[in-house]
Amino acid sequence: MEKVYVVKVGGNIIDDDAKLHQFLYSFAKLKGKKILIHGGGKLATRIGEALSIPQQLVDGRRITDAETLKVVTMVYAGYINKNIVAILQSHGLSALGLSGADANIILAHKRENAAIDYGFAGDIDSVNSNAISSFLGNDFSLVLSPITHNGKGQLLNTNADTIASEIARALSKLYSISLVYSFEKSGVLLDVEDESSRIPQINPDYYQELKSENKIFAGMIPKLDNAFKALDQGVSEIIIGPAENLEELINGATGTKITAI
Amino acid sequence: MEKVYVVKVGGNIIDDDAKLHQFLYSFAKLKGKKILIHGGGKLATRIGEALSIPQQLVDGRRITDAETLKVVTMVYAGYINKNIVAILQSHGLSALGLSGADANIILAHKRENAAIDYGFAGDIDSVNSNAISSFLGNDFSLVLSPITHNGKGQLLNTNADTIASEIARALSKLYSISLVYSFEKSGVLLDVEDESSRIPQINPDYYQELKSENKIFAGMIPKLDNAFKALDQGVSEIIIGPAENLEELINGATGTKITAI
Repeated sequence: MEKVYVVKVGGNIIDDDAKLHQFLYSFAKLKGKKILIHGGGKLATRIGEALSIPQQLVDGRRITDAETLKVVTMVYAGYINKNIVAILQSHGLSALGLSGADANIILAHKRENAAIDYGFAGDIDSVNSNAISSFLGNDFSLVLSPITHNGKGQLLNTNADTIASEIARALSKLYSISLVYSFEKSGVLLDVEDESSRIPQINPDYYQELKSENKIFAGMIPKLDNAFKALDQGVSEIIIGPAENLEELINGATGTKITAI
Repeated sequence: MEKVYVVKVGGNIIDDDAKLHQFLYSFAKLKGKKILIHGGGKLATRIGEALSIPQQLVDGRRITDAETLKVVTMVYAGYINKNIVAILQSHGLSALGLSGADANIILAHKRENAAIDYGFAGDIDSVNSNAISSFLGNDFSLVLSPITHNGKGQLLNTNADTIASEIARALSKLYSISLVYSFEKSGVLLDVEDESSRIPQINPDYYQELKSENKIFAGMIPKLDNAFKALDQGVSEIIIGPAENLEELINGATGTKITAI
């Protein structure tokens, strides 16, 4: 099967102009079919506060009331998505920036009856892999913002890590998928304060051991849980590591590979 | 040649939730291939002012400094575009929301050396009719925000009326194009205060006569100038009129038809 890279880029990269440009240059140079998934939470928080809309995060997830939904739709699907597309075009990449509502790419439903009311937070029901495959087949590189919809006219705010793993999973029936979580760290670290403590490879047994010894940074656990779930469901390879040089990351010179055995 | 509708919707419709929903229902029901072009100036002005970014319009055109470019990109390409797409999807339409940067659909350059410095205002260089035609061929209805790019990573703010006529002109080599300017008025009016004074049809001679007698409302002149230019360049038909029922407008029951003879 043909290879497709599904690359999630972290918020700290989006928020730093120099790092974002370096990442996008690296993404544009990556050969083959590819999809970029971004958030942009820090800018959304700043714009929300400037508009006197108080922003509240619980466990790193945003409480999305109606006004905050407007803010994240403006920031993620508008400002950040279109700037990324324009920069990628300047590197000669035929980029196509979409939300989950466009071409009905991601259908979701509003999360109900959770212990915490996250407001207009969307949990994914389905990924339109036919539409994505048709765009990839026309040599477009996709840039996805984490705004989804419920099919009834309602936009929803969805976690970008989850979108990356759900897209990887759905496309794994059609392609050999490398799912890449790129961010500002060297990879999964044994000591979160020490960038040199990178773990080059983690399999399920080792992950259980690390978790039981509390050696995994809390913020990394949702990423790793998503990663192992995606591996179980057909994704070929999952890589977590620095965003500045995707070729080195994919080759294993940096970062952490998550493997099934 | 196959028919394509290129429909511009006016700012007063975008700004009124009930009118917007009625227009989008009508657009979704319109049979055949179609493209919707929207602005959203009033919301951009409100958001700009709420962010303490003073908004300045000269002859109805926005002075787009760097901060204002962020605002219009957020509002047009983000909030308004994605809400329109989600509503159209709820009516069963396979809508795809794009800016001019996506798929390199509209290449523009920053307006320089004009009498007034409009800032990051983009004048159109080219329309990627192959990409548009490929999307239409895959049964997508396009929703375009008036944010363009210069191919060097810079987004630009472009007049939505002009985008509509340039797209109509470019696509007229491939399709029979009906260019529709839909808004809150009954059509081109002899007396701007009197909705019953609609002119059902205007040809170039009559237009010159109306202009020399100062009978055309100033805000309508750029639309009509664009319309006659588009007719000269291969667009089949141009219609100006109310947005609430596109079928009636296209059938001639309402609105004004602009004709070459």
